Amino acid sequence: MPELRKDPIVGRWVIISTERGKRPTSFKIAERVLASSGFCPLCPENEDKTPPEVYAVRRNGSKPNTPGWSLRVVSNKFPALIIEGSLNKQGEGMYDKMNGIGAHEVIIETPSHGTPLSQLDLQSFEDVLWAYRERILDLKKDERFRYVLIFKNHGVEAGASLDHSHSQLIALPITPKLVMEEMEGSKNYYNYKDRCVFCDIVHQEREDKRRLIVENNDFLAIAPYASRSPFEVWILPQKHYSSFVNIPPEIYRSLAEIFRDVLSRIEVALEDPPYNFTLHTSPFNNLINDYYHWHFEIIPTLSKIAGFEIGSGFYINSTPPEEAATFLKEIK
Amino acid sequence: MPELRKDPIVGRWVIISTERGKRPTSFKIAERVLASSGFCPLCPENEDKTPPEVYAVRRNGSKPNTPGWSLRVVSNKFPALIIEGSLNKQGEGMYDKMNGIGAHEVIIETPSHGTPLSQLDLQSFEDVLWAYRERILDLKKDERFRYVLIFKNHGVEAGASLDHSHSQLIALPITPKLVMEEMEGSKNYYNYKDRCVFCDIVHQEREDKRRLIVENNDFLAIAPYASRSPFEVWILPQKHYSSFVNIPPEIYRSLAEIFRDVLSRIEVALEDPPYNFTLHTSPFNNLINDYYHWHFEIIPTLSKIAGFEIGSGFYINSTPPEEAATFLKEIK
Repeated sequence: MPELRKDPIVGRWVIISTERGKRPTSFKIAERVLASSGFCPLCPENEDKTPPEVYAVRRNGSKPNTPGWSLRVVSNKFPALIIEGSLNKQGEGMYDKMNGIGAHEVIIETPSHGTPLSQLDLQSFEDVLWAYRERILDLKKDERFRYVLIFKNHGVEAGASLDHSHSQLIALPITPKLVMEEMEGSKNYYNYKDRCVFCDIVHQEREDKRRLIVENNDFLAIAPYASRSPFEVWILPQKHYSSFVNIPPEIYRSLAEIFRDVLSRIEVALEDPPYNFTLHTSPFNNLINDYYHWHFEIIPTLSKIAGFEIGSGFYINSTPPEEAATFLKEIK
Repeated sequence: MPELRKDPIVGRWVIISTERGKRPTSFKIAERVLASSGFCPLCPENEDKTPPEVYAVRRNGSKPNTPGWSLRVVSNKFPALIIEGSLNKQGEGMYDKMNGIGAHEVIIETPSHGTPLSQLDLQSFEDVLWAYRERILDLKKDERFRYVLIFKNHGVEAGASLDHSHSQLIALPITPKLVMEEMEGSKNYYNYKDRCVFCDIVHQEREDKRRLIVENNDFLAIAPYASRSPFEVWILPQKHYSSFVNIPPEIYRSLAEIFRDVLSRIEVALEDPPYNFTLHTSPFNNLINDYYHWHFEIIPTLSKIAGFEIGSGFYINSTPPEEAATFLKEIK
C-alpha cells in the first residue's frame, strides 16, 4: 500500500511508493526503455491489456472494452495510489501519514497512435475536456477525495512513459500544496481588494497586450508576468468561474479551440518540445467561491535545472514572458 | 537589467532576464554544446578569462588572479542578477517588481579539472564550506540583500554548464519562497510545541534509524520522511543552529567529512548521477532564532517529471526513503 506522507516543516504531502522501490541501478535503465517498445497497450485491439474502462466516447454504439472508441479512460495499470481501503490517518512519531488511497486514471485521448493532442480534430479535443469534467464529477462523489489533479506529460523528457497521446488524473484525499497556496493567496487578495486576482490578471493582460498570446470570446492565453520557466503559458476563462466543472457546457468548444491553438503554437515555435500541463481548479470542499479562478498551466520542458528549483523554490527564467508571447503570437 | 517579479497569487519571486532572451530555437542547441568544448575558463592559467576573484585560498602566497590557488570565488561572467544599482521597487499595474539587483558568484572548488567535489581531499572540501561562510558574511554587509542562496548543479542534466567542479551563490534582495515557508512552518511548530521541528527530526531519526544514513558527533545525514524524490538526502547539525554562519568554526571539518561521505555514497550507489544541492539557512533579518535549523538538501536528478511537479506542487516518489537510506548505508 503506498503512503501519503506530510513534510512536517512546510506541510507538503508526498506519495511514497512502499512497494519494492526502484533499485538504484534501475534509474539509468528506465530512461532508455520507454519510447522504443513496439507494443502499445493504449491502441485499439489491445483493450484487454488495460484495466476496464471507466468512461469512453463511443459514437458508433460499440461495446465497452472493445475497439470503436474515440476516447477511453481506464485505471492506470501501475497506479501511484490505490482505490480500495480507508485513509487510516495516523501519526508516526512526530510525522503524519495516511494510506495512499486515491484514483489514478489514464485518459487515452485518441485511438490513433502517433497523433499528438495538438493535432486532434476539434471534436476529439473537446471530448478530452469533457472526459476531464465527467471523471471529476464522478470522483467527487467519493467522500474520501478532496481534489482531482489532471495533468499531461508529453514526451519522454516531460515524464511520459508511453508514446500514445494520453493525459492522467489522480484523485487525492488531500489538496496539493500549490493549489492550497493559490487558494490562500487569492483569498487574501480578495479580502484586501474585493476582487478576484485572476480576474484582475485577465483585465490587465487584455489591456496591456504584451503578454497576451491569443484570445477568443470565452478564454485567453497569456505568458504569465512572473513565469517560472521559458514559454510558460496559462489559459484562463475570461469570466470568473472558480471550478472547471461549473463552466457553461457550451464553452468547452471554445476552450478546445484556444487550447489546441496554443499547443500547436508551442509545437511549431519550439519544435515539438516535451511539455507538462496541469489543471488548477477549486478543491471539492470549496467548489464555488468568488476568489479562485480555474485555469490550465502549460510548462514546456526546456531547461534542466529543476532539481535546483525543487530544492530552493526559486526560479530563474531566461526568456521574458513578453518575448515568449511575441514568438507565440507570431506563429501561423 | 534583469528584473525580480512577484507572482501576485502565491507571492513567489522569479528572476526574469530582460536581456535578449533565448530564441525558441536556441533551447535545443544549448543542450548539446555544454560538456564538449575543450577550453575551460575555470582552470588555472585562465584566471584572466573570469571576472577578478573576490575570495581565494592561496596557501603558497601566490598573487590574486594568477595560478597557485586551491579555491577561487569569482563573479559569474553571465550573472542572473546585477550587483550595481538600486532596487527601485515599483508596481506595474497590479504586479510588483524590482530591479534584478544581486550578486551571482561561482565557487571554483578545485584547480583540478575533472576532480568532482566528492573526491576532494578533506582540507579542500572544508575550504569550500569556509568559502560559503566567508562569502555569506561579506555579502551580509550589503544592506540590499536578505538572503544568500548557495547551490551546486552537478552534471549537465542537473543544470551544470561547465564540467569543472564548482558551486554557485546568488545574493538576493528577497527570501526564496521555500525558505520563507520553512521559516513560517517551523515557527508555527515552535509556537505550538516549544521545540524546533528540525531538532525533533534529528531526535526521532536517530532513535528510529530506518532513515538514518550516517552520522558523526556534529551532524547526521537522513533520507527525509516525506522525500520529494528518490534518494533525496538532508544533512543537519545535531545541535540547534539557526544559521550556517553561526556554527562553531571547529565543526566545519566534521561537516566536510559527512558531506563528502554522503556525496561518495550517492556517486557509488547511483553511478555518478547528476545532482543538485542547496543550503537552507535563516535569512539575514533573522539570523539567530530558536525555531529554524540550517541544513543542506541534496536531490539527485533521477526522474524526469519536474515540469509536472513545478506545475502542481505535488510529488510522487518511487523510492521510499527507508530503502534509499538502506542502499546508501550499505555502500563501502
